[in-house]
Amino acid sequence: MDELADRARTLDAIDPLAACRRLFTIPEDVVYLDGNSLGALPVAAAARISRAVGEEWGVGLVGSWNSAGWYELPLRLGDRLGALLGVAPGQVAVCDTTTVNLFKALAAALAMRPERSTMVMDHGDFPANLYVAEGALLAAGRPIERRLLADDEQPAVHLDEQVAVVALSHVSYRSGRIRDIAGITRAAHDAGALVIWDLCHSAGVLPLRLDDWQVDFAVGCAYKYLNGGPGAPGWIYVASRHLEVARQPLSGWMGHAAPFDFEPGYRPAPGIRRFLCGTPHVLSLRGVEAGLDTYDGVDIEAVRAKSIALTELFAERVEERVRSGSAGRRGTEIRMVSPRAAAERGSQVALAFADGHAVVRAMIERGVIGDFRAPDVMRFGFQPLYLSHTEAIRAADVLAGCMRDEVWTEERFLRRAVVT
Amino acid sequence: MDELADRARTLDAIDPLAACRRLFTIPEDVVYLDGNSLGALPVAAAARISRAVGEEWGVGLVGSWNSAGWYELPLRLGDRLGALLGVAPGQVAVCDTTTVNLFKALAAALAMRPERSTMVMDHGDFPANLYVAEGALLAAGRPIERRLLADDEQPAVHLDEQVAVVALSHVSYRSGRIRDIAGITRAAHDAGALVIWDLCHSAGVLPLRLDDWQVDFAVGCAYKYLNGGPGAPGWIYVASRHLEVARQPLSGWMGHAAPFDFEPGYRPAPGIRRFLCGTPHVLSLRGVEAGLDTYDGVDIEAVRAKSIALTELFAERVEERVRSGSAGRRGTEIRMVSPRAAAERGSQVALAFADGHAVVRAMIERGVIGDFRAPDVMRFGFQPLYLSHTEAIRAADVLAGCMRDEVWTEERFLRRAVVT
Repeated sequence: MDELADRARTLDAIDPLAACRRLFTIPEDVVYLDGNSLGALPVAAAARISRAVGEEWGVGLVGSWNSAGWYELPLRLGDRLGALLGVAPGQVAVCDTTTVNLFKALAAALAMRPERSTMVMDHGDFPANLYVAEGALLAAGRPIERRLLADDEQPAVHLDEQVAVVALSHVSYRSGRIRDIAGITRAAHDAGALVIWDLCHSAGVLPLRLDDWQVDFAVGCAYKYLNGGPGAPGWIYVASRHLEVARQPLSGWMGHAAPFDFEPGYRPAPGIRRFLCGTPHVLSLRGVEAGLDTYDGVDIEAVRAKSIALTELFAERVEERVRSGSAGRRGTEIRMVSPRAAAERGSQVALAFADGHAVVRAMIERGVIGDFRAPDVMRFGFQPLYLSHTEAIRAADVLAGCMRDEVWTEERFLRRAVVT
Repeated sequence: MDELADRARTLDAIDPLAACRRLFTIPEDVVYLDGNSLGALPVAAAARISRAVGEEWGVGLVGSWNSAGWYELPLRLGDRLGALLGVAPGQVAVCDTTTVNLFKALAAALAMRPERSTMVMDHGDFPANLYVAEGALLAAGRPIERRLLADDEQPAVHLDEQVAVVALSHVSYRSGRIRDIAGITRAAHDAGALVIWDLCHSAGVLPLRLDDWQVDFAVGCAYKYLNGGPGAPGWIYVASRHLEVARQPLSGWMGHAAPFDFEPGYRPAPGIRRFLCGTPHVLSLRGVEAGLDTYDGVDIEAVRAKSIALTELFAERVEERVRSGSAGRRGTEIRMVSPRAAAERGSQVALAFADGHAVVRAMIERGVIGDFRAPDVMRFGFQPLYLSHTEAIRAADVLAGCMRDEVWTEERFLRRAVVT
């Protein structure tokens, strides 16, 4: 009698998203729980990118900027992505990287609150966000103090008339904890501040309604749950109500009102185009397009429901199988970092364990791919489009097996970098 | 008797680069003179990119950041490109876009001359450079005055103790005129200023010795003569003597000294890596790699010699055939914008003609692809790796034919944007 495994089989049998698995190429016998780092390959991506290379570049040559729609690609894909963000067209551009886009958003937002002198971030935010904020503050043209939230601290305590910008991640890259995007946005606005949300770990797996929530700016990547390919360009959302005044310092020709008139001075384009900078990365954008294709006709509420079921099954199985294992024998302890309440958790389960790196490596050898984040977090991301409930159980069983086998006592697992 | 055509045939017969043509896929009967906008497709690019998609992304998944060398790609390709720039390894990164890289270089250079308050650019530089400089000046943290060179003005007249940075293009995107990079760099240094060179129109066609010339910073794209594909990432060179102090505000995690230690504060990597920002665009970088492959074993002096022969044949043929045509009948005049002296000319010939847009469109219909730059410039770029001398003659003959037929009187050629 294996109640959890039975439940998983039942859920697989009635899974409304089961057919989506066929949209992806995943090596046999692999349970891929790293879609929150790099999404799996959509089957259609190969043909789409190959056509971009062979026909668009090879035959169409420079004419493809018009004939193949390259020039419009950043905004056309932005509108398609916008549907997943819950926003009306004309507010999203796919371009550059998440980090560069965050720089643009920070610069634009700080310039829109010139009389204010502080900003709020989370000390536990994805480090790249903290890093680029340092650069953006230096470039702000006035002294800005950065207030960093401590663990479990809420931004509300820092909101006063000096705060220009609150810049946070919707879902923590580490714990998977979901922040109350609507409530924090409202509170920030009540204090006269603007918000910038990083949606790297929520776009594609959480229902989003940025327009309804009155979000000011948002950024994200396309290579995690959105399946856009390694190093796919990032994206930026700017609420249309700000698009007339928002300016960003990466004032490149693709953001110009008339890029081909070759005017001597910069004149920002009227819409979201002003947040573009240089020539778009066409081949990588075709990957993003293939990734967005995998969401065609998909009900994001069904994705969220399945995501909860997957993480819940995994967490329950870990509790059932690992707690009774040998994990404690060497004085080590494994601990759930993600919120135990499904409603507070994004599409990942993170477990802290001092020798987590060795465990993750051992799991990969046994076909279950998760990742490790220093100093001690094992992350398991669940992309509902290509994972089954049975796989969630199998992954937890492999984890339990690795814990039982005490693989972390073996020093053969050299610690190596894996990109988030 | 056709002396020029005979000369072209002779040159083709002894062309040491003739075999390189087979490295490219170019549609039959097309003479492609727009490699200074988008280089033609290397035959090997399709397989290389396809492998990056199918094997590296599809099978290797997130592990390919290590196993397929994705993580090192921006610097590894930078070193390969560095060979074409005449620089020692460790000073070039392939990343982001030319415009973003110019922003980084401007910010870093201005910060290295904190006591100085002006910079020098050319009013006729590629507009994107002028645009992004506006943003970089706003982000500089102090007022900086920008002095713009007028037509034919030399930077020397503006060099005084207030100049922090001289930022110029080596070869004009419009006229193809070559600036004296060594002399201007020396003069700038004598005045205590730093130089930033845009090499978009020289990398791959001119012999370069950035290290010898003591260039401080350089940027460029990889999608023109370097054949890296549509929207290929740009590159940045920073002289190793500056790498300890140079800082740039796009302080992303890929530029961190220990990107996977997830430290809270930004600490720039010791080498050129500090000029990286976000996650590298892997698929587009594989295109750059294929483009660089086309230069394997190629003698850049031979490229330059052939480039001169090609542009010279084209220019002579235009003089022979167009001047005696009907171009003047309607009171219009065609005029060479590029320097007539080969030594002053990059790998393009630009001709000004009020109705040049219609002429370029008509030439494209006849299989000769050049481009048009507002308000009146017809540009013809010559990539010696895939063009023959006979094609240079054919291109000029087609131009002469279009001028004779007065195609510009027909208004069917709608003016449309073509990306440089």
